[in-house]
Amino acid sequence: MTIEDLLHSPGEWLKTGGNLGDVVVSSRIRLARNLNGFHFLTKASAAERRDIVRTLCEAINSAQFGIETFYIDVEKADPIDRQFLVERQLISRQHGEGEGSRGVAIGATEQISLMINEEDHLRMQVLRHGMDLDAAWNQIATIDAALEATVEFAFHEQYGYLTACPTNVGTGLRVSVMLHLPALKITNEIEKVLRAAKDMRLAVRGLYGEGTEALGDFFQVSNQVTLGRSEEEIVTDFKNNVIPSIVRYEQETRKALRNDRLTALDDKIWRAFGVLSNARAISSEEALFLLSHLRLGTVMERIKHIDLGVINDLFLFTQSAHLQKRCGKRLDGEQRSILRADYIRERLAKAQPSTN
Amino acid sequence: MTIEDLLHSPGEWLKTGGNLGDVVVSSRIRLARNLNGFHFLTKASAAERRDIVRTLCEAINSAQFGIETFYIDVEKADPIDRQFLVERQLISRQHGEGEGSRGVAIGATEQISLMINEEDHLRMQVLRHGMDLDAAWNQIATIDAALEATVEFAFHEQYGYLTACPTNVGTGLRVSVMLHLPALKITNEIEKVLRAAKDMRLAVRGLYGEGTEALGDFFQVSNQVTLGRSEEEIVTDFKNNVIPSIVRYEQETRKALRNDRLTALDDKIWRAFGVLSNARAISSEEALFLLSHLRLGTVMERIKHIDLGVINDLFLFTQSAHLQKRCGKRLDGEQRSILRADYIRERLAKAQPSTN
Repeated sequence: MTIEDLLHSPGEWLKTGGNLGDVVVSSRIRLARNLNGFHFLTKASAAERRDIVRTLCEAINSAQFGIETFYIDVEKADPIDRQFLVERQLISRQHGEGEGSRGVAIGATEQISLMINEEDHLRMQVLRHGMDLDAAWNQIATIDAALEATVEFAFHEQYGYLTACPTNVGTGLRVSVMLHLPALKITNEIEKVLRAAKDMRLAVRGLYGEGTEALGDFFQVSNQVTLGRSEEEIVTDFKNNVIPSIVRYEQETRKALRNDRLTALDDKIWRAFGVLSNARAISSEEALFLLSHLRLGTVMERIKHIDLGVINDLFLFTQSAHLQKRCGKRLDGEQRSILRADYIRERLAKAQPSTN
Repeated sequence: MTIEDLLHSPGEWLKTGGNLGDVVVSSRIRLARNLNGFHFLTKASAAERRDIVRTLCEAINSAQFGIETFYIDVEKADPIDRQFLVERQLISRQHGEGEGSRGVAIGATEQISLMINEEDHLRMQVLRHGMDLDAAWNQIATIDAALEATVEFAFHEQYGYLTACPTNVGTGLRVSVMLHLPALKITNEIEKVLRAAKDMRLAVRGLYGEGTEALGDFFQVSNQVTLGRSEEEIVTDFKNNVIPSIVRYEQETRKALRNDRLTALDDKIWRAFGVLSNARAISSEEALFLLSHLRLGTVMERIKHIDLGVINDLFLFTQSAHLQKRCGKRLDGEQRSILRADYIRERLAKAQPSTN
């Protein structure tokens, strides 16, 4: 399997039909691990980095965790391919933009990706569409155990797993849930959520993780501290408290919009549809912003002729690297804006609305 | 005939098919006159104002200028009716908002309107769609002569016709041409036109004359000074020099947009179409702005399924008083925005585009 095979599927991230799928886009768990007997990457020589890649690739190939993976050498990959992997949430921006020997082993369905030489020697990630932390946790625990049967991870009796950055020491766990919160954004109540998240020591980031802004009303909520709590405690807290309370808040705000500000809501939704269906050039930021409103319109059934799958495709395939890979060549910003608009118009035209 | 009879026609102002109709919306000539033996309005008592109305109404009814008129008592008219007349360009904003005895005699086709007790005792106006100053001048000269055969206007051997404001003394003539200049606006070259107009002592105003901003790329160009030049000189200069040079500039700029920035042009045009076809609430300013781009798209044949007549109707009937008169009741701003959006969607939906 190659990176090209991924191009024509929506991957795991943007599949429809997940649990709490009106608000929760995807659930993700990652574990940070480092090999015993090697320096952390900040101190590792180029040769040592290569050794780490070789050791972990062998471990991944020989470990028994039940899913076949294919490996992409991120160091040697074309910049558009790297960006493509970032856009599919299979590697982090840091991993894509980094230097030196590094790579990622990806499961065919894109549910798992194992980054080698990101910030730590190994960052395992399991992704599930919708709210599904249990499945993600079970799968990543299986992978972790299988790998630990073949290699030795740096571990300290008292502190737990050792990591390059102290905030990851302990479980090395990060639980992230990607939420679509357009109603809270429209009403400005998102500020309350952000303040509450800060008080609860949660991080709220944008679509592409660390250092990215919340675009198109997508917010990635994750734990910040892993030391002193068990994996199960963190996952359970997310599953039972943190995420359900934000989801409920968004759902109630949507209801309030429907009851009290229906025309203003419809106006936003249909304007987004109107611009997306007619623009001849559109930036990725604007597309994301408008698609977000269109998504709200679809899940609230204010727009009935457009399938959520179409909107998810549009989210994915209007990203810069996706556009360039689809047309098979490098494009400048203006060309991308035109191609993006063409693609969106074409997809939306196939679902013509009844006149309303 | 009553004001209600006007409601369902586009009037003269926004008829299609006029000379240079891609740029010139309408041509207008007005003459300011005052009755001899009466004070100017700033000094006139309420009783004297009524006398002026009576005298001029009798003169208009008995004068032989070949067109039947009907009279509207603007003082007693409903505020929505007054605003309606302003929106149709049949009275000035000042006349609508003024005080005291006043009125207007309107020709059935809306080509002529004779305002009594606006700033002067009598302001005659002839309107023609497209570029047609000759016809307008011939008609207004006929009306002027016919009235002068029945009443005596204040006239001074040396200065000419006397008027309330010194800038109108002499011929009392104002020539105005309403231009649609979206390409010059898009390219910012409109600034050059405005500077040149100032140098030529021309006034450039918005849709509703004095004190109104240029909205939706509509610019009303008129002479400022009437003293020391004959009527024919002023009209001829407008017809042969002033207007053709601005029209040519706009046309060349449109050509340049087509040749060099076609995608950006199409993007503007189709976004306007998209928002207008989908919005659920829209202010009059935004509607005007977007309809202006849609008009450009239609006259440049970038949008082929929408008739210019439809767009002109939308310009006219989305104005506040027109909306309220059509639905037969007073509406607040929010209600108007919703009704305006409904009306626009309905009219545009009847002309569904082929998918493109």
